[in-house]
Amino acid sequence: MKTAGSIPAFLVFSYFCSSNKKQTMAQKPSIPKGTRDFSPVEMARRNYIFDTVKEIFQRYGFQPIETPAMENLSTLMGKYGEEGDKLLFKILNSGDFISKVDEQELQERNSIRLTNKISEKGLRYDLTVPFARFVVQHRNDISFPFKRYQIQPVWRADRPQKGRYREFYQCDVDIVGSNSLLNELELVQIINDVFNQLRINTVVKINNRKILAGIAETIGESDRIIDITVAIDKLDKIGLEKVNLELLEKGVSQEAVDKLQPILKLSGSNAEKLDQIEAVIGASAVGKKGVDEMRTLFAYLSGFELNAEVELDLTLARGLNYYTGAIFEVKAKDVQIGSICGGGRYDDLTGIFGMPDVSGVGISFGADRIYDVMTQLELFPEEAVASTKVLFVNFGEKEEAYCLPILAKLRASKVNAEIYPEPAKMKKQMTWADRKQVASVVMVGEEEIAQGKVTLKNMKTGDQQSVTPEELIKILSE
Amino acid sequence: MKTAGSIPAFLVFSYFCSSNKKQTMAQKPSIPKGTRDFSPVEMARRNYIFDTVKEIFQRYGFQPIETPAMENLSTLMGKYGEEGDKLLFKILNSGDFISKVDEQELQERNSIRLTNKISEKGLRYDLTVPFARFVVQHRNDISFPFKRYQIQPVWRADRPQKGRYREFYQCDVDIVGSNSLLNELELVQIINDVFNQLRINTVVKINNRKILAGIAETIGESDRIIDITVAIDKLDKIGLEKVNLELLEKGVSQEAVDKLQPILKLSGSNAEKLDQIEAVIGASAVGKKGVDEMRTLFAYLSGFELNAEVELDLTLARGLNYYTGAIFEVKAKDVQIGSICGGGRYDDLTGIFGMPDVSGVGISFGADRIYDVMTQLELFPEEAVASTKVLFVNFGEKEEAYCLPILAKLRASKVNAEIYPEPAKMKKQMTWADRKQVASVVMVGEEEIAQGKVTLKNMKTGDQQSVTPEELIKILSE
Repeated sequence: MKTAGSIPAFLVFSYFCSSNKKQTMAQKPSIPKGTRDFSPVEMARRNYIFDTVKEIFQRYGFQPIETPAMENLSTLMGKYGEEGDKLLFKILNSGDFISKVDEQELQERNSIRLTNKISEKGLRYDLTVPFARFVVQHRNDISFPFKRYQIQPVWRADRPQKGRYREFYQCDVDIVGSNSLLNELELVQIINDVFNQLRINTVVKINNRKILAGIAETIGESDRIIDITVAIDKLDKIGLEKVNLELLEKGVSQEAVDKLQPILKLSGSNAEKLDQIEAVIGASAVGKKGVDEMRTLFAYLSGFELNAEVELDLTLARGLNYYTGAIFEVKAKDVQIGSICGGGRYDDLTGIFGMPDVSGVGISFGADRIYDVMTQLELFPEEAVASTKVLFVNFGEKEEAYCLPILAKLRASKVNAEIYPEPAKMKKQMTWADRKQVASVVMVGEEEIAQGKVTLKNMKTGDQQSVTPEELIKILSE
Repeated sequence: MKTAGSIPAFLVFSYFCSSNKKQTMAQKPSIPKGTRDFSPVEMARRNYIFDTVKEIFQRYGFQPIETPAMENLSTLMGKYGEEGDKLLFKILNSGDFISKVDEQELQERNSIRLTNKISEKGLRYDLTVPFARFVVQHRNDISFPFKRYQIQPVWRADRPQKGRYREFYQCDVDIVGSNSLLNELELVQIINDVFNQLRINTVVKINNRKILAGIAETIGESDRIIDITVAIDKLDKIGLEKVNLELLEKGVSQEAVDKLQPILKLSGSNAEKLDQIEAVIGASAVGKKGVDEMRTLFAYLSGFELNAEVELDLTLARGLNYYTGAIFEVKAKDVQIGSICGGGRYDDLTGIFGMPDVSGVGISFGADRIYDVMTQLELFPEEAVASTKVLFVNFGEKEEAYCLPILAKLRASKVNAEIYPEPAKMKKQMTWADRKQVASVVMVGEEEIAQGKVTLKNMKTGDQQSVTPEELIKILSE
């Protein structure tokens, strides 16, 4: 609210001293590195993406929540590793914060320890930890299974670089409190529907953390599961021989590497791959469970015609220790770019906040990368840039008086319409309409008034037609 | 994106040490004072408000922009007065911030001066200063007149209290670069349309800063314009006699107070009031201009049937020194609450950033107060709480296999539909549907499968009907 209490003081100042101000107070405006302003055209395109994902999330029964930008640092710290703690934006306590720091602490000049004394809040780093906090805090009001989506910005004090920002939006969709693999099916369907609607061709790569654990167990190297996965992850880039070498270097036994070969050479359909994996790791209980889970999921998926390719990909590691079941990653087929969506199943999201054993599965859409893909492939449809449908050119008082009631009727018919606010030169008004990508303009001069008509001009074709106000409304509200 | 780099470390930890974790690390979750979580029901209602204002802003040709949550402190500081500087949330510099503070500065223990050394960024306090910064920074890409709306949260380190939050949303709509009073007309129409659509009865109070300046000039007390306005503002509460006393106490002369009486006793229609004001202050150039502006605006308004009452109110001060022309304030008629929308014309929004003489006019809708009014009057329509249209009850594997393709077809027809992810007890699933306010459920048992049908149950009436899948889709997509 623009209440009295919130009036920018410089405006008070400028009103009374408008002669001094300009020399003394003008500053060149800029925004913090790694942050962005969004123009109307960018907003229209971003909203096209957000509206699409929202609509589809809701079609699957997911409901929105929001959490505050600021969380207590006790909620955030220690949740993203040491590096993550450093990348949190921390908020300075209000008031005389330094008075709470004792002399010795001040002398130590240790920024990290000092932070604990002068800052209690931070900006959220992702939507996962706030969601875990939300679930536990509101556990008595939530009916589980809880299906929520959340589309909000997050902040990271990362080094800004091309395509990496310090403020960016995440679009997360999760279901917690259900172990059913039906949830995995529906997330793949959501991925398919979203990218189908956005007209992006995709490959959905799927893996299962239990299969990876089963592999490590089978070859007798359970402790080296991370090394093994990191090596497997490089198969595409460095080839089989070098992967084997790396495994041996990491201390994996020759025998184990030999056992691993059939898995590294997997081929065929997803079902065939699962058969081959089972032949190797079937004796491992966790491995067998992973294979069964994937069989169920692929069986579910076989019932539907999807536009996306779905592929079992054992080289997919993706937060290995985070996830405990299925893992997903989505790649755009026609653009070289990192994954545009990803996620998986996790077993104990809320344990840290005192609510153990709540399994969940979720995916996160990367709005910025999707935006980049769509820009590169020119996939944004016209309705994602179009703004006002019609502009009334302003020729002066008399014409204005004739136009305003017609304009009001158009708006009452839910047509986005406007009038240029001043009788500026025709060329200026037409340039303005052009830059705003207005589809058509209405022109009214003496002749039109005399005939009780308006002239409607299509801005693209240049076609003009003389119509009554009623006809105008009919044409434009179609 | 849930990339490897962003995996919450506690989940890594919890996976490997799930036995220790629960005792040692569980914390009772909470959020910072003055901030809020929004549940799905609250989100649906808030979005109903936001969607309404957005739709109407767009109908009038306004386009969205967004600016970053963080601005450079140099952009924000000194813009909201000394008190405002204190209420800014400041962000601690990343890295070893304390190394940039010299020994003497440290010893001074002056929190305000220290802040300048260890903090460069702050959270935005309103949407006005960021908008001014935006306009100047992007001046070469903007076609003026520029009509933008902006709906984003702002943050203030205010003392939290009932109805006052440290994070809250503002919905601002402004047009800059045009002096035309047509803009004032359209803002009143927008106010009318928004509250008409939300079904809130309102009074729109209008005043003009130039009239107030004219009054002060006429009674020979131009310097005391603030004192005079503050006193007039109390007319409703304390009555004419006490207002006169206060004026005299503030040092306004008896002669001036006498001259003021006709204005304090104004009555009649808006047009009659303007005639009476003109009789008193018509000799003041600025006063005459204010009266003329109001006459033009009320003449414009007389051409339209508005649901809102529009009233010239000389006691409206509302950021007197901020605004330079029309001032608006909207009150809900059926609820005792502060203004739910307000704004006005300002002459030099962008001067501080080196771009003088850009006039603008804008209003700001208070989403939180509107939410409170609508809750109190029970104005939220059903569609603002309804979620999924239909839930398929899950009776087990065989029934699931029968239901899933039907569910997919419903979704392809854009019906929000879901299936309970597990074959839980009937009662549990129905309770879940109830709490989620699902309109109807579909039940499929052996009989339905045998007949190729489904049973559709209306959750409100309890009515059941047996229909084919095709009929189901037809019924639900209507």
